[in-house]
Amino acid sequence: MSYKVAVLPGDGIGPEVMESALKVLNRIEEKFGFKMELIFGLIGGSAYDETGSPLPEETKKICLGADAVLLGSIGGPKWDGLPPEKTPELGGLLALRKMLKLYANLRPAVIYEELRAMSPLSERVLRDKVDILTVRELAHGIYFGEPKELTDTMGLDTMVYTSDQVERIVRKGFEAAQKRGKKLCSVDKANVLSSSKLWRRVVTELAHEYPDVELSHMYVDNAAMQLMLNPLQFDVIVTSNLFGDILSDESAAICGSLGMLPSASLGEEISLFEPSGGSAPDIAGKGIANPIAQILSLAMMLEYSFDLNEAAAAIRSAVDDCVKSGIRTGDILSAGMTAVSTKEMADAIISRI
Amino acid sequence: MSYKVAVLPGDGIGPEVMESALKVLNRIEEKFGFKMELIFGLIGGSAYDETGSPLPEETKKICLGADAVLLGSIGGPKWDGLPPEKTPELGGLLALRKMLKLYANLRPAVIYEELRAMSPLSERVLRDKVDILTVRELAHGIYFGEPKELTDTMGLDTMVYTSDQVERIVRKGFEAAQKRGKKLCSVDKANVLSSSKLWRRVVTELAHEYPDVELSHMYVDNAAMQLMLNPLQFDVIVTSNLFGDILSDESAAICGSLGMLPSASLGEEISLFEPSGGSAPDIAGKGIANPIAQILSLAMMLEYSFDLNEAAAAIRSAVDDCVKSGIRTGDILSAGMTAVSTKEMADAIISRI
Ligand SMILES: CC(C)[C@H](C(=O)O)[C@@H](O)C(=O)O
Ligand SMILES: CC(C)[C@H](C(=O)O)[C@@H](O)C(=O)O
Repeated sequence: MSYKVAVLPGDGIGPEVMESALKVLNRIEEKFGFKMELIFGLIGGSAYDETGSPLPEETKKICLGADAVLLGSIGGPKWDGLPPEKTPELGGLLALRKMLKLYANLRPAVIYEELRAMSPLSERVLRDKVDILTVRELAHGIYFGEPKELTDTMGLDTMVYTSDQVERIVRKGFEAAQKRGKKLCSVDKANVLSSSKLWRRVVTELAHEYPDVELSHMYVDNAAMQLMLNPLQFDVIVTSNLFGDILSDESAAICGSLGMLPSASLGEEISLFEPSGGSAPDIAGKGIANPIAQILSLAMMLEYSFDLNEAAAAIRSAVDDCVKSGIRTGDILSAGMTAVSTKEMADAIISRI
Repeated sequence: MSYKVAVLPGDGIGPEVMESALKVLNRIEEKFGFKMELIFGLIGGSAYDETGSPLPEETKKICLGADAVLLGSIGGPKWDGLPPEKTPELGGLLALRKMLKLYANLRPAVIYEELRAMSPLSERVLRDKVDILTVRELAHGIYFGEPKELTDTMGLDTMVYTSDQVERIVRKGFEAAQKRGKKLCSVDKANVLSSSKLWRRVVTELAHEYPDVELSHMYVDNAAMQLMLNPLQFDVIVTSNLFGDILSDESAAICGSLGMLPSASLGEEISLFEPSGGSAPDIAGKGIANPIAQILSLAMMLEYSFDLNEAAAAIRSAVDDCVKSGIRTGDILSAGMTAVSTKEMADAIISRI
């Protein structure tokens, strides 16, 4: 088995939290007796500043030659005024997604018992543990559908899915549900959209192959409402690119801080792993960012790309234990606690592995 | 001034809550010395059962001949299996929207001080009064864009806006903000969608005409997150048809019960007013539904279609007073209180006018 990882720290807090994650990886390698080959590349605004491109050729090569990509974060106000294809988001992240044909974005939203008070939701709503996995289609739909047109007086986008595209992502949803709470909620707008009608039809046909999974369908407007009213009803949500963009952010909001939430974007051969949160330019360089999302993204990489499930579990339980022990960066602090630095958090996690 | 109102009670709890609203109207007419002409029509599942169509010709005629339409609610599991064009939603409500060219959907989300505990959000988030108005484009966008295609293996929708269409709805947003908290948040996905790029451009150009309004732009994924994390930051939200569908439902969820939330859908000549909630088939016919959303929809009609602002204010303050006095239907009950019936709630409101 080859362990070649493209490491793209990116912008803002990316480099700091990546450094922490790589220290954790070091400890894991020691403990589990393997060694990964890390190749570093530039991406985002910092890549643009250095090379004139948010996704330089060199980075493309590095990624295409790797088994997995570990990304920090990208973007910041400094680069907001650039033409679209030069921005960290479009020219960097979206172009990379496209190049790697990343088709399934997995975003867990989990509230740690000890961090419940961080959630904007009331205790009545959070009477049990929120643990939602959004499986978002990432390679098609209205993000990439043709035609796309923009004139002085008209703007047009095309939301299109084929049954094969839907089948592939929906199977990921069913499979994820089988490994978790065995409940899958497919979200669409089938009362209005043709692409959603196709989506619902494919989901309904596939359901027979997964008799152990309890399937439900929900309209996207209702899903946006239900995530707020009663998030505990959800286990796995599977949905299209645009709806997944919206609902996975709403689910993340339930947890209060994005500093804890990792994500995986699966491709056919190469998958990408990154924190759900942004580059947090306001606190970048201060050494106070929460590295947990990056460290849990590393854990997802070990699990999804390399089947190193025990190693992933070791990271997760070390993180759990830190949170339980009241070790907190500023973003997840409660009254009466003292904030630790990015490095201290990483060290605390490492010492528990 | 002509006061001709098409009254469409519809399905489920529609007829009961409509009866209450009409009793309130009676009292208002008495007090303010005017008389409306009410013409009753069928719509939705009950119309389908009686005539074979969810929007019978007779109803179309009634609506087109009226100055405003007051709608109850439509739909229910009984009619879910019908072909799309026969369903209460598509064949009834959406067809009516199209026929009346309703282009602006206004949905206020307000939390009454006394009902804060109904909200799924924590007290920390609700430290002040939530009062959000979503102004949703209702006549265009991906709901009606052509082409729309559905084959065995492909589903396609078109999200399209022209600058005129955007301008009309965005002006409604600015005007609404001028009458309220003077803050407008325009929601789009301009980092990805061409239709959103056009949208943002039009909003930016119009902003110069409304210097008294503080304008912000937000991506739809972030808006879904911010509504949960910090709803107090919003005054008026203006957005496209699909995003408005999702975000107005999410905003409504903040309030806990839909039983309190009215809506207005403005057309060029004829506007439509209806509760935000559904037909609640589970409690239909029991006389326990909350009539407040319907009664507040009546108030919006008086204000928007007939400029009867004092009459509208009288209704609102009577509703406020009832809520303050602890008069509650089952959906907004707190511990230790006894629920009143639909009729009792209406009577309590009437006695305060
Ligand atoms: C930056 C943007 C293009 C991106 C998206 O919409 O997919 C982001 O919101 C995300 O969810 O990763
Ligand atoms: C019933 C459905 C077609 C409708 C919509 O999507 O507009 C509903 O969700 C609404 O918001 O009024």
